[in-house]
Amino acid sequence: MSDVWVNGVPQELIPASDRGLAYGDGLFETIRVASGKTTLDEYHWHRLQDSCQRLGITLNLSQLLDEVAAFLPACAADCAVMKVIVTRGSGGRGYNPQGCDAPRRILSLHPLAKRDPDPAFVGARVRMCQLRLARSALPGVKHLNRLEQVLARNEWQGDHYHEGLLCDDHGHLIEGTMSNLFVVTHSGELITPDLSFCGVRGVCRDFIIDLARCRGLAVREELVSPLLDVAEVFLCNSVNGVWPVVECADKVWPIGPVTTLIRDCVLEKLHG
Amino acid sequence: MSDVWVNGVPQELIPASDRGLAYGDGLFETIRVASGKTTLDEYHWHRLQDSCQRLGITLNLSQLLDEVAAFLPACAADCAVMKVIVTRGSGGRGYNPQGCDAPRRILSLHPLAKRDPDPAFVGARVRMCQLRLARSALPGVKHLNRLEQVLARNEWQGDHYHEGLLCDDHGHLIEGTMSNLFVVTHSGELITPDLSFCGVRGVCRDFIIDLARCRGLAVREELVSPLLDVAEVFLCNSVNGVWPVVECADKVWPIGPVTTLIRDCVLEKLHG
Repeated sequence: MSDVWVNGVPQELIPASDRGLAYGDGLFETIRVASGKTTLDEYHWHRLQDSCQRLGITLNLSQLLDEVAAFLPACAADCAVMKVIVTRGSGGRGYNPQGCDAPRRILSLHPLAKRDPDPAFVGARVRMCQLRLARSALPGVKHLNRLEQVLARNEWQGDHYHEGLLCDDHGHLIEGTMSNLFVVTHSGELITPDLSFCGVRGVCRDFIIDLARCRGLAVREELVSPLLDVAEVFLCNSVNGVWPVVECADKVWPIGPVTTLIRDCVLEKLHG
Repeated sequence: MSDVWVNGVPQELIPASDRGLAYGDGLFETIRVASGKTTLDEYHWHRLQDSCQRLGITLNLSQLLDEVAAFLPACAADCAVMKVIVTRGSGGRGYNPQGCDAPRRILSLHPLAKRDPDPAFVGARVRMCQLRLARSALPGVKHLNRLEQVLARNEWQGDHYHEGLLCDDHGHLIEGTMSNLFVVTHSGELITPDLSFCGVRGVCRDFIIDLARCRGLAVREELVSPLLDVAEVFLCNSVNGVWPVVECADKVWPIGPVTTLIRDCVLEKLHG
């Protein structure tokens, strides 16, 4: 990590007493930066505020936005990835969060991974993970309790697979380890898994739902079975954009017209 | 936090790139220190090793034990609580843990909370939490993903209740927010909730299971219903020892003979 700010000042260290470390008591956003500007920022800041509210963390958002506005030019950020972590701050020993009301803000800048060939254009090969996502007390929230994702991502090595898909306890498809999932039915409808019980509500997923509705495409959030017969499958996140899925288990799909349309709109948004 | 060592040297700060912060990718032990010595240590180090194995963290345990052996006298620890955090160490952005093979060890010393009156002797008042524990991919492990405990502990304020009890999705009793649960049946058998699907396998719980068996008391790990009619109820952890439960919801229990016997044995162990 090269460029890191903590609470608005350049600093690569945080106190070991931080509750983000102790309990994963906090949340994060991973934001693509294009030409020095954050992208999909209205979605990111909206989710960040919502996540804070659900964890009971009282964040001063305008202070954070000021810090981001100073951080990016100070790092001479051009095309990059900015990670924003907000923790409940430091606290004594014990789970009780009461009285911990000085959230810590951690900004870090990372290079944007270059993949050649880019799965956005040639398609992604995907595998099914063994791990089952648990029914969460905080469905949708991008909090710092991410051991499920770490364990799932550790199920495979090497370059063959670009992503792993996760099901819940009931065997319904929920998401990828670092992405959300959409399928396109043979009648051209978009379906994305319902995240009422587990999963991360990705901002790119929200953007795509809004985009599709603007374009007159039907979108539904509902239970998705891995056996569903669909025309197109794609994954999305706010850093990589849209990855058409061309292979999963023993199934293959083409890079279809709906996926291509959405991929290109997302890409335009992520290019700032 | 006053006394903190990181990787064997006095240091209150850790890099913001630590995966314990990023993902809760690590585990911890909270150990009672008596007369400058760790208590229940065979149980703590056994669980720590087991937890590391389940997370795929390759810890050098003898190095950690050397650090602990230097830390406690350096802090002039007498009666206190030592927290040991082991994280997977620093890593780049992304869930993939592969290549992160320098675990970080964080030792911190905290005062032992004095409660007057002590619930160990006068009994604890307990409430039922609303939050339901999810079926975990890592049942039993004392990992750093502890938002369930933070949210559950945040359900009540004030001094009336000493602890909150948690059920799983199916309504079975699992544990307290910071303690394990035992009930004593009218025929004198001990039952503690089965932790095959969720919950933290507390070291005091393991000690009590061994102790009871040594004393010829029957102990079973099985599903426990909140409606079970029992003679005695108690909670345990490795810092506070045994707390007889005297009140929960609209039920009351006496501080019974089995609880008293076990409390006193645990207390002897925790006094070193």
